[in-house]
Parts: sequence; structure tokens; C-alpha cells
Amino acid sequence: MKTLITGGAGFIGSHLADLLVSRDYYVLAVDNLSLGTIENINHLTNHKKFKFIKEDLLHLDKLKDSFQENKFDAVFHLAANSDIAASATNPEIDLNNTFMTTWNTLECCRIFHVNKFVFASSSAVYGDTIRELTEETGPFLPVSYYGAGKLASEAFICAYSSMNNIQSWIVRFPNVVGERMTHGVIHDFIEKLKSNPKQLEILGDGNQKKPYVYVKDLVEAMFFIYQTSKERLNYYNVGVEDQTTVTEIAKIVCEEMQLGNVELKYTGGNAGWKGDVPHYEYDLNKINSLGWRAKYSSTEAVRLAVWSILSK
Amino acid sequence: MKTLITGGAGFIGSHLADLLVSRDYYVLAVDNLSLGTIENINHLTNHKKFKFIKEDLLHLDKLKDSFQENKFDAVFHLAANSDIAASATNPEIDLNNTFMTTWNTLECCRIFHVNKFVFASSSAVYGDTIRELTEETGPFLPVSYYGAGKLASEAFICAYSSMNNIQSWIVRFPNVVGERMTHGVIHDFIEKLKSNPKQLEILGDGNQKKPYVYVKDLVEAMFFIYQTSKERLNYYNVGVEDQTTVTEIAKIVCEEMQLGNVELKYTGGNAGWKGDVPHYEYDLNKINSLGWRAKYSSTEAVRLAVWSILSK
Repeated sequence: MKTLITGGAGFIGSHLADLLVSRDYYVLAVDNLSLGTIENINHLTNHKKFKFIKEDLLHLDKLKDSFQENKFDAVFHLAANSDIAASATNPEIDLNNTFMTTWNTLECCRIFHVNKFVFASSSAVYGDTIRELTEETGPFLPVSYYGAGKLASEAFICAYSSMNNIQSWIVRFPNVVGERMTHGVIHDFIEKLKSNPKQLEILGDGNQKKPYVYVKDLVEAMFFIYQTSKERLNYYNVGVEDQTTVTEIAKIVCEEMQLGNVELKYTGGNAGWKGDVPHYEYDLNKINSLGWRAKYSSTEAVRLAVWSILSK
Repeated sequence: MKTLITGGAGFIGSHLADLLVSRDYYVLAVDNLSLGTIENINHLTNHKKFKFIKEDLLHLDKLKDSFQENKFDAVFHLAANSDIAASATNPEIDLNNTFMTTWNTLECCRIFHVNKFVFASSSAVYGDTIRELTEETGPFLPVSYYGAGKLASEAFICAYSSMNNIQSWIVRFPNVVGERMTHGVIHDFIEKLKSNPKQLEILGDGNQKKPYVYVKDLVEAMFFIYQTSKERLNYYNVGVEDQTTVTEIAKIVCEEMQLGNVELKYTGGNAGWKGDVPHYEYDLNKINSLGWRAKYSSTEAVRLAVWSILSK
């Protein structure tokens, strides 16, 4: 079984590569190394079932060459801008890195007859809403360019799937944490506390509350869905039952760094940045019915992620 | 009130220009004339409140110039590929003409602070489903590249609206018919019967059943929604209560062409072409509650459209 992982040197992509290689899949990891790193895949580079190519998915001709040379059985498309906060002032980042990367990859699947496509989507497709998020229930009103890029990607995956009989799995991630993560609230807090262990500035009011999934749980779920769900078009939320607030994360970071009496200073407002969805909760009935549950809760995942950064 | 209509020389865009000018709006119509025609707007060219520029929205720099020169109060974005059947073999048509035209127009609104955006969306965003289509209910699983391009456009409109406080109106059109239409089933039937008045080939089994709205009803609805619905993000189905089958359309065309004993020959299958949605029905409660209903039924709209073509 020959697979392509786009974004294969990234935070999540490299964990997926670990998993697929361990299951005896051949993996070609493609990454432009803008957010991914060689360090993430160093341990794999001598593996006989793993190969890495530095390439930007925006170069469609180069991507076609890779598809031509390798007869992929399946594509796991994870490449995307992953930093919602960073793209807030420049929509072109998500147009290109989140959406056009998907379109180019789909176009190669169409041309080279690859008929299995697994996609890393996001809770951001739902937008900012108080309802529990179920896969079927609209409206879908993304509030960030990132969410728009993911929803636009889903739209074209549906059409490509239908027009070309490409079996597709859309997996909507929650917040993902763990080894090799490159940014986000946990990172920020650790960096801030390293430079000032007395005070921690928290963006927003600290009540932002989201489900955090441990990265190894997530890639297991992705692989499980791919193997188990048999429709032409399959789409699932992946998550955990509980959620963790930003203030709780701050406290866990302080505990694990063994810092007492840190003053938490809030910038105020309910969202951490423009485009942020401060609260969401997944309905997980669909994936639970398929037979999957996360090993680690949201709060356990956060603690694991803190450990992994501190122990580097 | 200074407005931009993209696709302003097109079938629907030119009718909207007629309406807006009649309501004393200033209209700049932009069109690349790939599907639109000068003939559609000839009657407007001497109107002091109307101006036309031939320009392709894919040229972002040129579009920026138009936004810079004209301080638009509102944009009505109608430019798109409108021929779903034609784009089935080339997804790039809808990527560019349906989606990227939207992104470029949104980007200009962001840069030049135009904070009213009205969008011509489509029933195609819902995909092929037996349920009655309500604005809120997902999933949204388009089966054509055209539907994907429209859903991708909606996704970015939501994000731009949220990120830049652009008030937006998404209007999901059903099939639209009437004067100045350039293609579609009515056109095809008339052309075929002109060359062979004895026999009419019908794509599919003839049972495809859809709501057809008369173009003047549609642009009235679009303008009504724009004036009446006051949320930051507004989204509505526009349609008619009834639907018309393809066989019924064939019979109306034969009647109006005064042809008796035409043999109807079916190619078979439930869809007319790949990417076609053979049946759909709108829930219209939302727009009815806002205070709008179509003047003409689906079957009346079809007959009006047949007349308009035959009387040219």
C-alpha cells in the first residue's frame, strides 16, 4: 500500500507517518518545510518504507511529477496553514496554503486516478456557534480564513469525489496537542513563563473552552476512520468528551513548570484573537458508533503536551 | 448609491442592472463578455446612471483599479461560470470563474472598505439529496465543481464578513429562466426542434424535476432581500412553490413552437449529465417570512422563457 502524506514533516503529518509505517504502509512525505521540520521525521529517514521530498504543493507541475513517479493507492492530505492567528491579517495565506494545496492535490488524484483521499479538516468549518457540533447540522459559517479554506476544501472534495468516484474521508479535527507542536496556547504560555515566571498574560478572558485531543489519539482515529468507514464520502468529527479552558491550561503549565504564585493577567474579551472560536463542543456519536474513543481526555492531552515540550 | 455588478452583462446581471438603475442606483457593470454580451446591456449604455467596463475579475490588479476609482457602496457579485454541464470535464473552469472571481472581489472589498456584499449562490451548494432544502440544514455535499465553487465562495464570504465586518447577503438561486438566457434545457430543446421538428432527444429519463424561477422575479427577490434582511450575514433560498419536469418542459416547448406529434426520445438515466442534481425542492419559509413570494410559478416561468426565445 503506497501512500502520500502531504504536510508529512509537520506536527500531525509526522505522527501519521509514524503510524502508517508501523502498519507496513509505504509513505512518501511531501512538505515545503515552512511549518514542518526535518527534525520531526529524522527518526524515519532510514526506514525502508519512508521517503521524504521537500516540495511545495502550490507547484502543481512538480506535484504532478510526484504522482506520475509514484503510483499512490491513497493520499492523506494534511498540508495547510495551521496558524489561524497568524493568517488573520492576510487572507492569501489560507487561500493558498489551506485551500489551493487541497485543490492541487485533488487535481492530481483526478488526473492520476488515485481514488482514496483522506482529509484533515477542522472544527473551524462550523464557525462560531453555541450549538453542539454535529456533522450533519448546518449552517456552516466559518469566521476565520482558515475555517473558510477548510470548508472550501471540503466542498471541492465532495465534488471531486462525486465526479471521479474518489472515495473520501473528511476528518474534522478539534484542537490538537502533543509532541512536535509548533505553536498555540501551550507553546505561548511556556515561552512567556520562561521569560517572566512571575506573570502570565492571557489573551481574552481565559474562559475560552475547547476540546484538545492528543496527537497520537488523533492519528489513530484518522487511520481507524479510513479503514472502517466504507461510504464513498465519509465525514466525521474527531474529539474528546471534555473541554479545557484557557485558564485551566495556564494552571497546568504553571504546575508542570513548578511555578507558584504566577499572576494571571487577562487582556479581556471572549476571543483570544480575531477569527478565534472561543467555545465549541463536538457531538461524537458518529465516531463513537463507528467504534472509536480517545484514550486521553482533553485535560490529560494538555498535560501530555506540556510535558513533551518541557522535556525536550 | 454606487454599486458594482460583476457579471453585469450576463443573463441575470443585466436584469439586475435594469432593476437597480430603475431604482436610481448608479451601476458599474463589469463583465469579461465570455458568457455575457453587449446586446444584453445595449439599452442601458446611454443611461446616465449606468457604465460598463469589459474586464476579467481574474485580473486582480485591474479590479483593484476599478475599486480605487469608484467608491462603491455595495457590490452585487454575479460573475461565475454558469454552465455546469460544460465544466464537468474541466474543474479549473469553476475554480477560476466561480470561486476565484469571488475571492478577488472579496479581497477588493476588504482593501477598499466596501462593506456590503450581495452574492448569487445556488441550490448546487446542497448537493444531491432527497430532503427539502432549508438554509440551515446540512450536510452540504456538492456533486458538481460548480456547486463546490459556490460553496467555497460562501465559505470565504462568511469569513470576510466576520473578519472585516462586511454585511453580506447570500442568495441561493434555483434554476433561472427568461429573456437573455444563454444555455440550458429550454435553449437546447428549441435548437434541437429547429433542426428536427419530428423528434426531440431528451438527456436522462425526463423525470428530472426542479423549480424554475423567472429572471425578473429573481432579481426582485435579490434586491428585496438586500433591502430587508438586516443581519451581518444573511442567507436565503429564492424559489417558487412548484417544480417542472424536463418532459413537461419539452411539451411546453413543442406547444409554443406549435409542433404536433414530436417523438420524445430519452437517453435514459436519472441525471441529464454528470454533476446534475435531478430533483430538488426548496423550503421557502425563510424568504416567505421576510415578505417575498414569486409572481410566476415554475411552469409559468418556463413558458415565459420559451416565449422570450421564440419571439427574438
